[in-house]
Order: sequence, then structure tokens, then C-alpha cells
Amino acid sequence: MLSEKTSFRVRYCETDQMGIVNNGVYPNWFEVGRTELFRKLALPYSKFEKKGIFLPLVEMYIKFHSPAYYDEIVTVTATVKELPSTRVVVSYEIHNESGKLIASGETTQAFLDAKTMRPIRIPDFLKEDMEKYF
Amino acid sequence: MLSEKTSFRVRYCETDQMGIVNNGVYPNWFEVGRTELFRKLALPYSKFEKKGIFLPLVEMYIKFHSPAYYDEIVTVTATVKELPSTRVVVSYEIHNESGKLIASGETTQAFLDAKTMRPIRIPDFLKEDMEKYF
Amino acid sequence: MLSEKTSFRVRYCETDQMGIVNNGVYPNWFEVGRTELFRKLALPYSKFEKKGIFLPLVEMYIKFHSPAYYDEIVTVTATVKELPSTRVVVSYEIHNESGKLIASGETTQAFLDAKTMRPIRIPDFLKEDMEKYF
Amino acid sequence: MLSEKTSFRVRYCETDQMGIVNNGVYPNWFEVGRTELFRKLALPYSKFEKKGIFLPLVEMYIKFHSPAYYDEIVTVTATVKELPSTRVVVSYEIHNESGKLIASGETTQAFLDAKTMRPIRIPDFLKEDMEKYF
Repeated sequence: MLSEKTSFRVRYCETDQMGIVNNGVYPNWFEVGRTELFRKLALPYSKFEKKGIFLPLVEMYIKFHSPAYYDEIVTVTATVKELPSTRVVVSYEIHNESGKLIASGETTQAFLDAKTMRPIRIPDFLKEDMEKYF
Repeated sequence: MLSEKTSFRVRYCETDQMGIVNNGVYPNWFEVGRTELFRKLALPYSKFEKKGIFLPLVEMYIKFHSPAYYDEIVTVTATVKELPSTRVVVSYEIHNESGKLIASGETTQAFLDAKTMRPIRIPDFLKEDMEKYF
Repeated sequence: MLSEKTSFRVRYCETDQMGIVNNGVYPNWFEVGRTELFRKLALPYSKFEKKGIFLPLVEMYIKFHSPAYYDEIVTVTATVKELPSTRVVVSYEIHNESGKLIASGETTQAFLDAKTMRPIRIPDFLKEDMEKYF
Repeated sequence: MLSEKTSFRVRYCETDQMGIVNNGVYPNWFEVGRTELFRKLALPYSKFEKKGIFLPLVEMYIKFHSPAYYDEIVTVTATVKELPSTRVVVSYEIHNESGKLIASGETTQAFLDAKTMRPIRIPDFLKEDMEKYF
């Protein structure tokens, strides 16, 4: 299992007129968690793209458990539970400072050749790198 | 069934460095579709809040079928398939100009008392209004 | 003078907990106005990039005159007052449905070679195209 | 003088198809810097609003010196140079990891009574708090 926690403050611009964080912000928070998760590997995600590999989302699910508020510190826990083959599934839990569950969810990403924009299997360098976690 | 289509252009700021629309934009597009869907009712969503009712999301699912690009016209079709009781489920399909399916998904919203921020059943004014569509 | 008006509705996600449109949204609205302005030319902005030309911002100024609200229709008027040479200066005014001035501002963009990312003069195809407006 | 530095990573969703951070993101980064600046005072900005005071922007200027990229750590330095009376002027500089200046700018905010949404002078609690820095 590959898992990582990342904490940051809620930005003012992330709230909406309901006085809580807008639902459209959560995919961005998932992405922040995912970026830090991949940083544990030999290559951060920013290097994947330089090697010609894109990881676009094919599916996303979010469950909103309780609201998040401006200036709170939230913690995203991102986890890969199974060694990926053609797709990477990442699970997320977001908690606030007092440990309350804010949101949970899952994303599925495909490996894409950045030049042809066509699906490929997990690249060898990444597979080898990830294997030690499973 | 209550259904509505809304079309608009993809904004430059909605793209990311993959050259396609960022996944975090789709919840916003769902919201645009939902706003126009509710406009068919006697009261637009902006009036719900003035009547003390919030409709925060409790769940969201998005499937990304094919990428969307800057300056394309996309069309969001938002549909309520069943008369809501305590929650509103809206389904979405997003197509591009050539009719290709870009994304599909579903959101579930709860009725909330804006003062107490506690769940309530569908308000009568809204139920009566929606009944004629089912 | 080259000028164009574009109207659209304020999105819910564009508001913040002050109950008004967040200041960070206005650059995006300027961009929508600019996109429609350039569409009056022979080539829309989306084609500039395909021709290897980027137009990144070098400066932006925004004056916030009065708040904008969810679900209002706002109109962006974008204007190029002088034939560009190495930079394009676009002025903006944003009004709400009742004609009230919401915001005004100005952006300055440089012409960049998309490959080298270095500044260039206005490309000939664009200069010839724009000359008829001045 | 009241000044504070804040560092964070560039998010993927903050880039656009030019491969750099979109101009519309900088107001949000200014806001992050401003939030941390105000945290040095007795009351963080989140408490201002609870005391019935809003600080909406009336003006913003941004100069884009060089591009910012995904996954870089950027540092926002936010500075109040003069003791505010009716308005707060904050200056910003944003640098990347290698110390290069990415952007600079300035925002002007008005004090507003959150109930009446009308301008007021700087509240006493805030004036006394800020005086020690000037």
C-alpha cells in the first residue's frame, strides 16, 4: 500500500456564498494529495509528463461528509491500495483540524502516451518503483 | 422528468498543461447545467437561498469520456429523473460541438435549512412545482 | 478601434463567503471578453496558438466598482484602442443587468514564440487583420 | 511595516494549456499571502468577518515577470507599508524556488460593515493592533 498525508489551509477563494468550501474545489484537493503521494516514488508526477506520460482522470467519485471552512487546516490522505496495471486507482480521505471527516472519494487515472494521446500500460520504470509498496 | 440543455464556450483558464479541460472544472459545469435546470421551475435556485434553503452536494460522480478543449462549445444536459423527497439526484451528460460525449455524471443534493444548517424534507413550494414534470 | 461585448451568467462557484463574486474570477471574465474580441478577427485566439504564437499577460489592472452576484447576467466589453506593435493592450468594462458598472480594468499581453518562449513583434497576419479597425 | 512570507506548491489545476500558471490564479495567491500577513495580528482575517467586518478588494494590480510552473514551490511576500485608515494597501512579491521574481502587485481593500455593506473606517481593535508595526 502506498499512502501519503498532506495538509494545507483552506483558501478564501475556495468558499462560496453558502459560507463553505465549494464542491468544485475537492477535485483540486484530491490532486494536491495525489501529487504528494507520487512524490514518494523515485519520480514525482511532474517528471512523468517530461517522460511523455500523461495520467488523465477517467473517473472520479466524491462523498461530502461535512463542510470545510475558510482558514481551517485540512489533511488529505491519498492511498493506492493495489499495484496498478493499466489504471491507477487512488482513494482519498479529507479531515479537518479536529479530525472530522470532511470528504472521501476515489479517482481512476489512465496511462496515456503524451504524443499519441492513446492509452498505454503502466510504464516499467513506474511499475518497478511501485512494486515495493505492495 | 425534468431536463434542460445549456451551452457555453470552454474558457482558457479551464484548461491545464495537458492541453485539455482540467477535471476540477466539471463540477462547475454540472452546476451551470443545474442552475438552468432549476430555472425551468417557478423559482430559480437563487431564490431558494433567499427562502432559507440550501442545496449542498452530498455526493458526486463524474466519468470522463473524452477531453474537452479551449473555445469549443459544450452542451450540458441536466436531468432529474425522479421526484425528489429528501434529496435531489441530477444526472448530467456533456457533449461537444460535434456531438461527442465528453463526460457524464450524477450529483446528489440535500435540502438544508440555511439557518440551522440541518437537513429538511423537500419544501412544499418546490414539491408542488416539480410534481407536474413527473 | 476594435471592441466586442459578451454576456454570460455568474456561476455559483464564482461567489465566495462574502456573498459576492470573488476577486480572482475577474481575470477569467476578462479572458472571456478577450476571446470574443479576437473572434472578430480572421483568426480566433485558439488559432494563434496553433500558429505557434502565445499571448501571455505581462500586466493586469482591475478596479472593483460594485459587487457582482450569483445568477446575474454580466456583460464584458473588451476594447483594443490602439493598433498593437509588440504588445496588445485590452481595456475592459463589466456591467450587470441593470447597467451598473461592476468592474473595469486593463491587460497588457506580449507576443511570444511558442517554441522559444521569447518575445516577438506582432505577426504580419495579425497586424494586417487588425489594421482595418484603426 | 508589517510583512510576512508564505510558501506553497503550484497545483496542477493552476496551470493552463500554455504550460504555465494561469494569470487568474495570482489573485488567489495574493489572498493566501494576505491571510498569513493578517495572521500576525491579534486576530486572523477569519475573525474579522465574525466581528462583522468585510475587507473586499477595490483595486488590484499584477505585473507578471516570469512564468510559474507546476510543482514549484513559490513564496509570496505580502507587506503593508503604511498604517491603514479607511483602506488597506498590501504589496506582493512572488518568487520561485531559485529566487526568481515571478510576479509583483498591489491590492487595495476597503473596510465594510458586513451588515450594511457600507464603508467604515479601520476598526479600533485593528488600528491599535497594527500601530506597533509602524
